[in-house]
Amino acid sequence: MRPFLSLNSFVTLRDVGLRDGLQSIQTILPTEKKCDWIDAAYAAGVRHMEVGSFVPAHLMPQLADTASVVAHAKRYADLHITVLVPNLKGAERAIEAGADALLLPISASAAHSAANVKKTPDQMLEILATIDSARKSAGSSITIDVGISTAFGCTIQGDVPESEVVRIAKAAVDAGADEIGLADTVGYADPAQVKRLFTKVQAAIGARCRTAHFHDTRGLALANTVAALDVGIRYFDASLGGIGGCPHAPGASGNVSTEDVVYLLVRMGFETGIDLDRLLVLRKQVSQWLVNEQFNGYIWRAGAAKSSAFLHQ
Amino acid sequence: MRPFLSLNSFVTLRDVGLRDGLQSIQTILPTEKKCDWIDAAYAAGVRHMEVGSFVPAHLMPQLADTASVVAHAKRYADLHITVLVPNLKGAERAIEAGADALLLPISASAAHSAANVKKTPDQMLEILATIDSARKSAGSSITIDVGISTAFGCTIQGDVPESEVVRIAKAAVDAGADEIGLADTVGYADPAQVKRLFTKVQAAIGARCRTAHFHDTRGLALANTVAALDVGIRYFDASLGGIGGCPHAPGASGNVSTEDVVYLLVRMGFETGIDLDRLLVLRKQVSQWLVNEQFNGYIWRAGAAKSSAFLHQ
Repeated sequence: MRPFLSLNSFVTLRDVGLRDGLQSIQTILPTEKKCDWIDAAYAAGVRHMEVGSFVPAHLMPQLADTASVVAHAKRYADLHITVLVPNLKGAERAIEAGADALLLPISASAAHSAANVKKTPDQMLEILATIDSARKSAGSSITIDVGISTAFGCTIQGDVPESEVVRIAKAAVDAGADEIGLADTVGYADPAQVKRLFTKVQAAIGARCRTAHFHDTRGLALANTVAALDVGIRYFDASLGGIGGCPHAPGASGNVSTEDVVYLLVRMGFETGIDLDRLLVLRKQVSQWLVNEQFNGYIWRAGAAKSSAFLHQ
Repeated sequence: MRPFLSLNSFVTLRDVGLRDGLQSIQTILPTEKKCDWIDAAYAAGVRHMEVGSFVPAHLMPQLADTASVVAHAKRYADLHITVLVPNLKGAERAIEAGADALLLPISASAAHSAANVKKTPDQMLEILATIDSARKSAGSSITIDVGISTAFGCTIQGDVPESEVVRIAKAAVDAGADEIGLADTVGYADPAQVKRLFTKVQAAIGARCRTAHFHDTRGLALANTVAALDVGIRYFDASLGGIGGCPHAPGASGNVSTEDVVYLLVRMGFETGIDLDRLLVLRKQVSQWLVNEQFNGYIWRAGAAKSSAFLHQ
C-alpha cells in the first residue's frame, strides 16, 4: 500500500534557487554559471524553474542578467520559466523576454508589505490589474502567478489573519491572477495551519490555489509539505541546496532544499520526474561556485535510505 | 479551529538525552551534572525521562552511574523514570533501582540484531519472557517497555518487512511487554510509512502501541511526528539538543531535538506541560557542559514564531 499513489501521484517542483536563492546571498553568480545550472537541472528532470527577477539592476545586481538567463532557458521547449516581477515595468520586461509565468508577490501582512514594497496589499492588487491589462494588450499568453507572502505569519506584525489571506487570494483571481501560491516567507507555518489555510483558500478559489512555498527556518518545511500534500497540493517551490530565502537568524535556514523535498516525495511514493542523484551532483557543483555561502538540507549528507530501492529505478 | 485539540490534545514527551544522547557521544558527563539536568528538565515540566542504561560499565562508561542517577530522579514522585536494559541482569538492576519502566530494545532487522546484540529477534523475545518472570517473582510493578528498533528500515539489511514488525509487537505483548514503541533507529522512516506501520501495529495490539521514536538523520523527524499524531500516537521520545542517536554520517543528526518537538506540538495546538523557554535555557546549559559535541535542532537558533502567543501562556 502506498498512500497517495493514485491519479494524483505526480508532484511538480519549481526550483527557485536562481531567484530566491541567489537574491539573498552576497556572491554574484556569472550568467554562464546560471546557464550551466539550468542545463544541469533540466538534465536532472527539473521542468519548472524560477530563474530571476525583473527589478532595477542597482537594487539587485545578482539578478541583473535575468533577460539573458531567460533567453538561455528558452532553448528547452518544455521548461516552464518563471520570473519574479514587483510591478508593471517588470511585467513588461517579463513579457518581452518570453517567460512562461510572472510571479507577483503580494504580502498578506500589511506591515511586511509597507516595509518591503511601501505599498498596501490593495495597492499591489491594483498593480496586478494593470499587469493583466498589459498582458492582454500585448497579446501575451504569459501566466500571472501571485505569491501571497507572509501568508502564515510575519516577523514584524506577528499573526496574519487567515481571512485576509483568503480575501487577497479571491481579489487576486478577480484582478487576473491565474495561479495563487501561499508562501511561508519567514518559516512560521505549522502543519495544522497549512492544512487549514490551504483548505480555506481552495474553498474560495478552487484549483487556482496551486503553489506551496515553505521555508525551513524552524525545521518544519518538510512537515508542512506533507500537510499540503494531504489537502491536495501538488506544486511546490524549493531551492537547490536550500540556499537563500532570507533566513532572518544567523545560521538559520531559509528556503527548503529541493533535494530534501525530492527525497521525501519519492520515498513517500510520489513521482517528480527528477533524478535525485543528478540533482545532488548539481548541488555539489553549485556549492563549489558559492563557496562562502550557507547551504542547508539533509539528504546530501546522509544519503538516501538503503531501503528506498525505488529511488534508483 | 485547532485540528487535534480535542480530548486527545495532550502529548507526552520522554526526554532520552541522558541515555540515547549521552551514550553515543565521547564526553562523560559527571553524575552531579546529570542530576542538575534532571532537576532543570523537571522544573521545565518534563515528566518522563530515560535516564540511563543498566549495561556493563566497561561497555558504556558514560552510563555507569545509572543507579545513582535513578536514585536522584526518584525524589520527584511524579517523574516517570525509564532505563534501558539489554538483558535479564540489566532488568534485575532496574527493578532493584526502583525505575518506573525498563526499556528493552528488540531489533526488527535480523541483520541489525545480529550485529548489535548477537541475538535473533526471537532470542530477544525469550529474554523478554524471562524478564517478565523476574518482575513477577520480585513483586515489582515496573513497566516493561519494548522498543522495536530499525522498525522502518536498517542500514545493514535495507528494508524491514512490516509483517515482521507486527509479528514482534504481538509476540512481545504475549511475552509480557506493557508498552510497545516503534523506533526509526537510522532515520529511514517517511510519513506515509509511519502512518501505515503504526496503524498495522495498532490493529494488532491496540493501545499498547504507544511510543514513537524518530531520528532526524534525513530531516523527516518532525514530519514523521505529525504523521504519528495523525494516527493517534501521543507519546514521543526526543533528546535535548538533538544529541546522540548514532547519526551514522559525519555531521548528520540523530535524535530529534526535544525543543523542536515541543515547539511543533505547541504551535499545532497540543499541550505538553513543558515550558519551551526553560527547556531552551537547559539546552544552553547542557551545550556548555558538552562543548565538543554536536547539537542539532532549529528552534534554539530561530526562536519561536512571533505569532505563537499561546507559547507564552
